[in-house]
Amino acid sequence: MIFQDATIQEIDQMMQEAWQAFLLYRKTTLKQRADLMRTIGAEIEALGDELIRTAMEETNLPEARLKGERARTIFQLTSYGAACEAGNWLEARIDTAVAEKSEPDLRKLQIPLGPVVVFGASNFPFAYSTAGGDTASALAAGCPVIVKAHPAHARTSELVAQVIAKAVEKCGLPKGVFTHVHGAGFETGKALVTHEYTRAVGFTGSTGGGKALFDWANQRQSPIPVFAEMGSINPVFVLPNKLKESAKEVAVTIAGSITLGTGQFCTNPGLIIGIDSADLQVFITELGAAIEKAAPGTMLHPGIAKAYAAKRKAALEQNEVTTVAISATGPAENQGIPTVASATGKTFLKNPLLHQEVFGPYSLVIRCADKKELLEVVRRLEGQLTTSVMATEKDTKEQADLLEAIQDLCGRLILNGVPTGVRVALSMQHGGPYPATTDSRYTSVGADGIKRWVRPLSFQNWDDALLPDALKNSNPLNIWRTINDQLTKDKL
Amino acid sequence: MIFQDATIQEIDQMMQEAWQAFLLYRKTTLKQRADLMRTIGAEIEALGDELIRTAMEETNLPEARLKGERARTIFQLTSYGAACEAGNWLEARIDTAVAEKSEPDLRKLQIPLGPVVVFGASNFPFAYSTAGGDTASALAAGCPVIVKAHPAHARTSELVAQVIAKAVEKCGLPKGVFTHVHGAGFETGKALVTHEYTRAVGFTGSTGGGKALFDWANQRQSPIPVFAEMGSINPVFVLPNKLKESAKEVAVTIAGSITLGTGQFCTNPGLIIGIDSADLQVFITELGAAIEKAAPGTMLHPGIAKAYAAKRKAALEQNEVTTVAISATGPAENQGIPTVASATGKTFLKNPLLHQEVFGPYSLVIRCADKKELLEVVRRLEGQLTTSVMATEKDTKEQADLLEAIQDLCGRLILNGVPTGVRVALSMQHGGPYPATTDSRYTSVGADGIKRWVRPLSFQNWDDALLPDALKNSNPLNIWRTINDQLTKDKL
Repeated sequence: MIFQDATIQEIDQMMQEAWQAFLLYRKTTLKQRADLMRTIGAEIEALGDELIRTAMEETNLPEARLKGERARTIFQLTSYGAACEAGNWLEARIDTAVAEKSEPDLRKLQIPLGPVVVFGASNFPFAYSTAGGDTASALAAGCPVIVKAHPAHARTSELVAQVIAKAVEKCGLPKGVFTHVHGAGFETGKALVTHEYTRAVGFTGSTGGGKALFDWANQRQSPIPVFAEMGSINPVFVLPNKLKESAKEVAVTIAGSITLGTGQFCTNPGLIIGIDSADLQVFITELGAAIEKAAPGTMLHPGIAKAYAAKRKAALEQNEVTTVAISATGPAENQGIPTVASATGKTFLKNPLLHQEVFGPYSLVIRCADKKELLEVVRRLEGQLTTSVMATEKDTKEQADLLEAIQDLCGRLILNGVPTGVRVALSMQHGGPYPATTDSRYTSVGADGIKRWVRPLSFQNWDDALLPDALKNSNPLNIWRTINDQLTKDKL
Repeated sequence: MIFQDATIQEIDQMMQEAWQAFLLYRKTTLKQRADLMRTIGAEIEALGDELIRTAMEETNLPEARLKGERARTIFQLTSYGAACEAGNWLEARIDTAVAEKSEPDLRKLQIPLGPVVVFGASNFPFAYSTAGGDTASALAAGCPVIVKAHPAHARTSELVAQVIAKAVEKCGLPKGVFTHVHGAGFETGKALVTHEYTRAVGFTGSTGGGKALFDWANQRQSPIPVFAEMGSINPVFVLPNKLKESAKEVAVTIAGSITLGTGQFCTNPGLIIGIDSADLQVFITELGAAIEKAAPGTMLHPGIAKAYAAKRKAALEQNEVTTVAISATGPAENQGIPTVASATGKTFLKNPLLHQEVFGPYSLVIRCADKKELLEVVRRLEGQLTTSVMATEKDTKEQADLLEAIQDLCGRLILNGVPTGVRVALSMQHGGPYPATTDSRYTSVGADGIKRWVRPLSFQNWDDALLPDALKNSNPLNIWRTINDQLTKDKL
């Protein structure tokens, strides 16, 4: 099946409809939005095997993984829907009038920005694509969504889009609440980002792609916010006492994370950092042994397999980079070969290519000469989604300065765990300093992702009857509000 | 007194010191930060008449206004300090581990971004300058501040900077927590915004100035957030029944707002919009009468007076723009002449120059042919800080579509009041869609301004002893936290 790229005229028409839908959709109650999200979840479930089969064909991802991802997607829709209904994200604030100071009654809540354009990820055909986290959080916020289908899984995207449209209709909402656009070239994306009715952009993908959207959005006559999650090499620090205690166990755990899903996660641990020692050598040997045993996997599509092969080759060919281990199983076409290499801290510090993501089952172990060099590596690392530390209690005491320094690096710190596996919860930060994302103040996983699509609006001296329900004296939504600086569910 | 522009080398040295200070300052307790802010407030108070006198000389603002502004500045410091201590802005979230789903313990809080560069406003030498709202909110967040003095009130800025430095020392904090830089040319500003250790920028001023900083920040190798508040024409809608009831009273109120502080507020009502009628004509006549009685005032500095004269002249010379009234008092040198003009909705819609801010005691009354044209004017207006509506209950019922449409325009909606007078409170939104600000999701007034300078950091599977106090099981800070989706002050 081949989908036609949308023309500029079609995009304009779609955006007009999205804007008209916004004017109605923003007036829906929190419950109506949550109902829509739950209905979308149920419709996705109802697609059954057809959806899984189509995604398997387009992405080469195994059935179990796709079923897990489908469950995650539905959980996102229902849990962000629940968060939408709970209303904490509205950040309702009321300051009552102070007559003696002539200070007026002032009340504030978060309102939706307007139509949000979403560019889904190639590596998550469900959870970070058509009905994924960006779409779910934007719908919760009260924003219509325009999804540009990822060309690598356009049929899967089309199937999901059809059931979202069905859910929108079932819920009695205007069609423009959800729009699905195909476009293989960059022109479609640019037309969407630069359209006057587009009010925000969500993106998951490459640094180049995310940066292009960011630049287009900032160069508009009226700039708009872009949240682009652009990947990461997710450093893992393996500390001396931990290695002394359990080098093999740590190696096996990290090898599992490197090769999980053929390494095609933005949280893949692409960099492992330790201080050179006999224990680190044991760790490297064990990691190599585990990688040799790992089987190659078919990658998402030929383009990604080709890019992996090229980037892996370039990394391994760098001066003073040693190949530690390669999967013992010969790869079939379009498969990614599990690979681990190693280099000294000195080599890493002077070669920026080694800081770049090699998207696939690849990781580089950095052997630092000493603690000082290890801290210098931290200082020179670019922004990351995550940083992990494998450490005993003794390590954490001895390396307090490292534990502090890594806070500048990333959005999520993991102790004795691996970065793959991103829990969907309010406390999740899936984001980080540039170039991990274009704005470290936001997350794309968890209900706090809603914040990307809203802005505050204050009502001064407004009549109670004219105020949004969230701000009325009687607190009809029964939500938490900050009244005169105190959090409360009280009426006024 | 003439201050030397900082050289690039000096700026680099300052930023290095600010970064080193950040590493210590971010570890201070919330109470330590609040103490610093209270100490700065007390030191500003202690400057007494010298500060007021110096500011009067540099800005031509009257004593009473400056004393009021000083009190506001101290209130900002102390109230944002109190908000800092209360800790709600930390947005502490905890999701406990779920063993059966292999979900790890995850906890999140807001951490400071790093050194913040602040460009103060010419029109608020205290409250939005050296120790103003941007500085106060950044210090609360845990960020060192680098203020570039506004060249129009460099001596005032220097005085305030000296007492901030004194307060920093008194509180036992490193000197780099606060840095003061002079620089009349744009090179100083550019060097500050593009320095690798600068992590965010706050600005209050012109559209051109704010946009330049925004572009520099986005073009960095590692882009950083800029919150630039760039002014607004703050439309005021005068509705039919309200005019029928009290045209004169409304006119007098608005005239007071137009001429307050010689119109030198970013919330000055520069546009008044109504539907043409005999009542609107009465309103215009009364507004003209009040403006004729208003005296010209000396503007902040000759540059601003000259810009006002030029922009006012250009506006009055536009085709089909009628001068309604000019102050009957002849102006002295550098004074701004209170002026009101009028035009039809049709004229306004076709002439973009009439949409531009004329910074000073000037306002333009738009006479729309009908409700449809009035809504078209709303649709074509650029982003604003505020929108005001003068309306009876009958008006608000009859003009529900207008009340809804203006929500897209601005950050603050005012009913039967004027936009001047910005309450410092958590419920204040001082911000709005571009070009009012560069990011409508943030405010520069109220303790929510702290959010501009922080980002979330998640801790996964972290030991209780290693967690920041805000996230420890025992809740030692006694703050509100969201634990498994429930807001609570409970321990775990």
